[in-house]
Amino acid sequence: MADEVVLLDFWPSPFAMRAKLALELKGINYECKQQDLLNKDPLLLQMNPVHKKIPVLIHNGKPVCESLVIVRYIDEVWNHVSPLLPSDPYRRSQALFWTDYIEKTVYGVGRRIFIATGEEQEKAKEELIQFLKTIETELGEKLYFGGDSIGFVDVALLPFTAWFYTYETCGNFSIEESCPKLIEWVKRCTQKESVSKAIAHPHKIYDFFLEYKEKLGGN
Amino acid sequence: MADEVVLLDFWPSPFAMRAKLALELKGINYECKQQDLLNKDPLLLQMNPVHKKIPVLIHNGKPVCESLVIVRYIDEVWNHVSPLLPSDPYRRSQALFWTDYIEKTVYGVGRRIFIATGEEQEKAKEELIQFLKTIETELGEKLYFGGDSIGFVDVALLPFTAWFYTYETCGNFSIEESCPKLIEWVKRCTQKESVSKAIAHPHKIYDFFLEYKEKLGGN
Repeated sequence: MADEVVLLDFWPSPFAMRAKLALELKGINYECKQQDLLNKDPLLLQMNPVHKKIPVLIHNGKPVCESLVIVRYIDEVWNHVSPLLPSDPYRRSQALFWTDYIEKTVYGVGRRIFIATGEEQEKAKEELIQFLKTIETELGEKLYFGGDSIGFVDVALLPFTAWFYTYETCGNFSIEESCPKLIEWVKRCTQKESVSKAIAHPHKIYDFFLEYKEKLGGN
Repeated sequence: MADEVVLLDFWPSPFAMRAKLALELKGINYECKQQDLLNKDPLLLQMNPVHKKIPVLIHNGKPVCESLVIVRYIDEVWNHVSPLLPSDPYRRSQALFWTDYIEKTVYGVGRRIFIATGEEQEKAKEELIQFLKTIETELGEKLYFGGDSIGFVDVALLPFTAWFYTYETCGNFSIEESCPKLIEWVKRCTQKESVSKAIAHPHKIYDFFLEYKEKLGGN
């Protein structure tokens, strides 16, 4: 029996993009079910009763929740194609360390850039740049965080780069100016078909952001 | 050559206790180096330059940082004794899901109980109980979250239970009243020698908390 793989998705979500990216890199056939987050589907509530959030991967009827847990699961089940985590325990621990750093930083700091104004926004911009510079140092001269191919850290970070244009436009600053090598990495990655299929275009994200802000009555 | 295992520790830290618990459960010999967090040791800054935080596991000279990454690493390197994560990918994903939930919830909510007062404290207490009830449902009739033996989820949560007495005393409430089965699990675990070696006594934690509060000029 072929695997039945369904993703409960919300296309602009960087968390959902992580799952899609892992699925695309592994060449797995899957069905994407877009969710209305303001009017949640009973299927979403049933599959993720604790968080009631996307993404949820449903594999042969069984749910896996939380984006990085989903990516781990995909990597382990389809381990014969494009392994994302190194097999050596020490190298693996280092990939998990960087992923944890990304997880604890990027979403919160990025969000503050378009929610805050004035001094608070300046602080968030500085924190984002500091974070990205640290990450850029870890990339070093490698092609990808995973070395010669896209790995777990790349999958964890790449979806957030689709939001860079929105951060930059809201905060009136340039990430490329501070982190040129990181932006080269983004371009190197998005040239790949599997990546461009999974990661939304930055302009599309910005259009979504403007629409969403208007809906919520922001200015 | 025998493994050289050093832990940069701060004994009341639940994060450091996770690492000690994993080491004790596996029967690994290690040296604990207590850290002065107000005057950080150059070794700590060198071993964890990104976060500058304990715990750090130094295995044959190489650092691993972040408590759950450390526990994963210990489980993988010493995988022949007391495995903490199940080998089946789906069961493993579920253990990682619950651990992620613990990681994103317990520290922040617990901290708010002894920092906040009045309505804000009441809200934090409610959130903690809600979280623990959800976790208790996952425990169900099992002896441990890991089934018949202590597993990854147990290691992630147990150190925070050493802080329960402090939460309860500061917030004037009883966790056992709302979550009796979870407290049975705590007692079951702390009867084990490996656990009692790694997890500080709740009264000692409370004494530390009072001393720390006085030092910081709280009331």
